[in-house]
Amino acid sequence: MQALRWHNAKNIKVESVELSPIKPDEVEVSVAYCGICGSDLHEYIDGPHAIPVNSCHPISGAYAPITLGHEFCGTVSQVGAEVVGINVGDRVAVEPEYRCGHCQYCKKGQYNLCESMGFIGLMGNGGFASKVNVPSYMLHLLPNNVSFEQAGVLEPAAVALHAINQSSLQVGQSCIVYGLGPIGLLIIILAKLKGIENICAVDMSEERRSFAKKLGATATFDAKKSDVMSDIEMYMPSGYDVAFEAVGHQATLTNSIHSVKKGGEVILVGLMGDVTINAFYLVNNEIKLISSVGYRNVYPELIQYISQGTLDIAQIVTKKVLLDNVVEEGFESLIKDKSQIKVLVSPAEFIS
Amino acid sequence: MQALRWHNAKNIKVESVELSPIKPDEVEVSVAYCGICGSDLHEYIDGPHAIPVNSCHPISGAYAPITLGHEFCGTVSQVGAEVVGINVGDRVAVEPEYRCGHCQYCKKGQYNLCESMGFIGLMGNGGFASKVNVPSYMLHLLPNNVSFEQAGVLEPAAVALHAINQSSLQVGQSCIVYGLGPIGLLIIILAKLKGIENICAVDMSEERRSFAKKLGATATFDAKKSDVMSDIEMYMPSGYDVAFEAVGHQATLTNSIHSVKKGGEVILVGLMGDVTINAFYLVNNEIKLISSVGYRNVYPELIQYISQGTLDIAQIVTKKVLLDNVVEEGFESLIKDKSQIKVLVSPAEFIS
Repeated sequence: MQALRWHNAKNIKVESVELSPIKPDEVEVSVAYCGICGSDLHEYIDGPHAIPVNSCHPISGAYAPITLGHEFCGTVSQVGAEVVGINVGDRVAVEPEYRCGHCQYCKKGQYNLCESMGFIGLMGNGGFASKVNVPSYMLHLLPNNVSFEQAGVLEPAAVALHAINQSSLQVGQSCIVYGLGPIGLLIIILAKLKGIENICAVDMSEERRSFAKKLGATATFDAKKSDVMSDIEMYMPSGYDVAFEAVGHQATLTNSIHSVKKGGEVILVGLMGDVTINAFYLVNNEIKLISSVGYRNVYPELIQYISQGTLDIAQIVTKKVLLDNVVEEGFESLIKDKSQIKVLVSPAEFIS
Repeated sequence: MQALRWHNAKNIKVESVELSPIKPDEVEVSVAYCGICGSDLHEYIDGPHAIPVNSCHPISGAYAPITLGHEFCGTVSQVGAEVVGINVGDRVAVEPEYRCGHCQYCKKGQYNLCESMGFIGLMGNGGFASKVNVPSYMLHLLPNNVSFEQAGVLEPAAVALHAINQSSLQVGQSCIVYGLGPIGLLIIILAKLKGIENICAVDMSEERRSFAKKLGATATFDAKKSDVMSDIEMYMPSGYDVAFEAVGHQATLTNSIHSVKKGGEVILVGLMGDVTINAFYLVNNEIKLISSVGYRNVYPELIQYISQGTLDIAQIVTKKVLLDNVVEEGFESLIKDKSQIKVLVSPAEFIS
């Protein structure tokens, strides 16, 4: 079968590979759609970051070269001997976090913090392929009225919902979202769904700001042209209850901290390295820095919203491409064209 | 009357001052004890930090020279015309936070975040004096079985309890306390009272570590001689649920972050300036940095514990001195002698 393989930075290609024999606790999924994530782009541009190169991942046993793709859904085409409750023909979404099941975090249900945590599609062969073998615990059955297009966006939506869950944002409160990539935009969609009426969106791109408005943002600030702090001083002098930092930058982190009211929360979703923080300001204003990584226990809630018709996450899909063209029309397009938000890749045909 | 006046750094002295006429919403308190706080020492050593010098505080209207002292209790000796529910002869503790009563924070009961927040004894004339006029909202009546010695330690105990309240520490969990000054030691006493059985205490001073053990710490690490991270690796490899940073230093902040398990909390109580944080580590391990400043709504709970006999905060009092000798026997002693923890100052005689 064909699969997109990561060999090295700038060296990813669709090539022919053999699917390994299915293990007793695995399910073979015939992929419908697999989304391209920012972390896939990072692995492409200057990886490896998360991809194991010199040793294998403790759960998957895999290392580079590896088939990329962790935001995927499809149809069950084979079921391992020990798997119960899942049958050939079932439509499924894959929650791609590996977990050991027995560490202190897994035992508490905090499997996103598993001591051996990893992602299929980064630490094991993933979904930019016709077929992929997946541990059965990763599967969520899809109701018939949840399209594969929606299911292809479940993974970043899970990141967004978990970030909101890490905050104490509640009806009547306000939030500001820094960074209008897929995660920032999905935070806006989900915050609106949760009843938040005052949502401010900040980005340098005008296209993304207008998109954010369409999705539910009630105000937008241009991070390129204007001083966001002056904008806040003018339009929201009391400050926001919660800021979501979905960029991963020193400047947006500093702005996030200064955007919230005393006692407010900054939710760190973007990844960054060493940062400098004015701890005196933080403590004196009793501001909380709350981290959010991956997700746990949110797929069922998201699937239910979609099935009920109250959530449309496929709104952020700007393009669908075939696996054969994924590098040029997918990866390169996302790097060059900022109007692209979420690109879904299909191994064969664009089904709904 | 005699009062300890701050004129400048290194220039504090007991001198004769006139008490201003009592305002209608004030109560005159004849001071029994007033504790020396770390922030008093900072103002003495290299202030002004919080003391207003060039403009007056918006609530108190005061500026330097100012009478120091915010950790005090005493007996009501005069009552303003508009004050109800407080009578001459009442024994009271003073909760020294000024509040405006009408900003967005005061309206929510978060008066420690008041937009005009300040402390009597720093931004207004305080308790190192025979008598002090206090806004009536600062007063808490003391049951007869709560001694002035206990009441003289209520203020730092309030800081400690608020820090614990800002965390989600609960029975069955563990914590580590960095810095065994009055706040760190009171956090240990209160964490033990709240049912925490695994409390680790870290300090460079052996005397303070043994004191922490006496108060309820179940383990202590020497921050001077050993590598605290190796100690934790050996004795608590799973990490602590909550770390309290009660030092205010880059090194202890970094250690605090690395002391907690994934999903853990670091409570910032110590004051520091710009710090460097590895945000990648923070996010990847979903660690929360939670700030704590002052206190709100905790005096009644503390007074009740003391009255019930379940809390003894006077354990940290190592010395009592007379106001006349406060600079040499109080301030200088605390700077030079690390076995001194909390020094209570009495304007006249050592009463209980």
